[in-house]
Amino acid sequence: MKKQLTIGVDVGGTNTVLGLIDREGNCLARTDFHTQRSTSEEGPVFFDEYMDLLYGAIDHLLAAAPEDCVVAGIGIGAPNAHYFKGAIINAANLTWKDRSKPSKEVLGDFEKQNRCEVVRLLKKHYPAVKAIAMTNDANAAALGELYYGGGKSLKKKDLVEITLGTGLGSGFVSNGDIVYGHNSFAGELGHIVVEPNGRSCGCGKCGCLESYCSATGIRRTALRLIDDTATPSVLRKIEREKLTAKDVSIATAAGDKLALEVWDITGHYLAIGVSTAVAITCPEAVFLFGGPTKAGDLLMNPLKKYLDKYMLPSMKDTKVMFSKLGEDAAILGASALALNAIAAQNK
Amino acid sequence: MKKQLTIGVDVGGTNTVLGLIDREGNCLARTDFHTQRSTSEEGPVFFDEYMDLLYGAIDHLLAAAPEDCVVAGIGIGAPNAHYFKGAIINAANLTWKDRSKPSKEVLGDFEKQNRCEVVRLLKKHYPAVKAIAMTNDANAAALGELYYGGGKSLKKKDLVEITLGTGLGSGFVSNGDIVYGHNSFAGELGHIVVEPNGRSCGCGKCGCLESYCSATGIRRTALRLIDDTATPSVLRKIEREKLTAKDVSIATAAGDKLALEVWDITGHYLAIGVSTAVAITCPEAVFLFGGPTKAGDLLMNPLKKYLDKYMLPSMKDTKVMFSKLGEDAAILGASALALNAIAAQNK
Repeated sequence: MKKQLTIGVDVGGTNTVLGLIDREGNCLARTDFHTQRSTSEEGPVFFDEYMDLLYGAIDHLLAAAPEDCVVAGIGIGAPNAHYFKGAIINAANLTWKDRSKPSKEVLGDFEKQNRCEVVRLLKKHYPAVKAIAMTNDANAAALGELYYGGGKSLKKKDLVEITLGTGLGSGFVSNGDIVYGHNSFAGELGHIVVEPNGRSCGCGKCGCLESYCSATGIRRTALRLIDDTATPSVLRKIEREKLTAKDVSIATAAGDKLALEVWDITGHYLAIGVSTAVAITCPEAVFLFGGPTKAGDLLMNPLKKYLDKYMLPSMKDTKVMFSKLGEDAAILGASALALNAIAAQNK
Repeated sequence: MKKQLTIGVDVGGTNTVLGLIDREGNCLARTDFHTQRSTSEEGPVFFDEYMDLLYGAIDHLLAAAPEDCVVAGIGIGAPNAHYFKGAIINAANLTWKDRSKPSKEVLGDFEKQNRCEVVRLLKKHYPAVKAIAMTNDANAAALGELYYGGGKSLKKKDLVEITLGTGLGSGFVSNGDIVYGHNSFAGELGHIVVEPNGRSCGCGKCGCLESYCSATGIRRTALRLIDDTATPSVLRKIEREKLTAKDVSIATAAGDKLALEVWDITGHYLAIGVSTAVAITCPEAVFLFGGPTKAGDLLMNPLKKYLDKYMLPSMKDTKVMFSKLGEDAAILGASALALNAIAAQNK
């Protein structure tokens, strides 16, 4: 029997990156292209142009597969991806999301519901590929962790992945599968309220976890402490608009008291978020992923301090740690989605 | 083919109640017995005595099954039930939980780990019964809602059941199955923190949802308002120790301002809890069950007011309503667990 490979596709705002992945998570070949015209003159303007570029990139990887292997699945991680519909719906940062050449077959429900039916088109184009599925980045990361990262050493297939970046995303794996919810939009840990009447959030609510613990939230906490306290800090010398979470890390490493306080506040709210995720789904482990985790112990130490306060005593055996996924996390996550779809078919 | 029936067993602190249930949720026969000696001279003292009474009650229902029917499953809802182990572990209110006659076979891991292996013993005693499973009351209620209650009219098998009583329990159904977590203890919505540094909770933490929104929590809120405000109220005439959530309902119905404020505070915190559950699992519906729901609009109106504030805009299509399970909820829930176990075997 031929060895099964998968193709992982990460649809980013700037680039679409694809990898040909084996069962162990090794990337045997990779390719990429510009996702949209807005970021490069070479990118596509219309959705059907995007699909043509995607077919080309996939063909390239199919051709790169060794003779004793077969590509059994294609997984796609994309912003605003709807798992059940296999479509990207109203993704704010994708210019082609609402443009297609009216004459072409790709339209589907496009005009009616403004959705890019990536999975339907791929299934039609690649009938020999057993499983094709798409989900959002955080769910893909959770599956990537399960198949290729820290999840490999767990006894049960129950984990939570929290992705820290400009926003705060999350994916919940329960009994080996993602908790999608009735409309595929579950996993919005970033928008649980951790501070009633707290600071405003991009979602329109107030006091959301994301508004405190994303890179943007960490920046906002630093600015608030600069404004509201007299604590001396090197951060006061940085132009307000240019201050980043990374600056806070650098300052903390140099012993800056205000910066330390920023991490303490971040750890406090993140502990409420993590303990809430654990109380509801009781995973074997919670993994933290993304830029702010580069702060290492600066983030982990206050987090653990407050977890001791907020975690239900009966759930303290849930491990909380940094992701074990490396730089290829996005394509590995997408590839893991394909693996999971294959596993579901074999059940 | 014979019609499949199930037996639902509700292990309560006072009584163990059993029902013979058909596919439509009709109770064809029922029986009960005292769960433990502490509540009646007739109850069992030892775990093996308890099991003998349970066998007798099940035999009674098996004999009551019509000739064209077969009992295909037995489901048990019990406090501190461990789904994966099929055992009751350290249930605080069950006296026989740590007592068994040492000579008898029922011991199992009993002495080592203090667990009552109800499922293993039942499987041995009733080898002809296809599926036997046990879970806690809140998970059973969630499955009862799914199979026999408000879940019947849902398009997807994704719901959350919140049980309000002395405590606050919850069961999460994702894609037709309970979210058990790695150790079967998931679904502790009652112990998410809704007020950092809030009031103390029985679990040892502070600010838990349960400490505000259970019947006990409602009572505590009333007592706090009596102590901290000068608002006139009929509740002030009730002896502190005797004040209950029901008194708050009665007073509100008579237009009592302080009592109204109690419901407003309860609705506020419950909205944080419900919106958190929805953000994470995005169910098609959230059902509220138990004593405090008898307050009806007194609870639902402030809840909906604050849900409007706390619910993520993209998730506002999740319905929030009272349970459609009637008085037989506990045995229907246990019966539904059996149905679900049968369905899993047929997958």
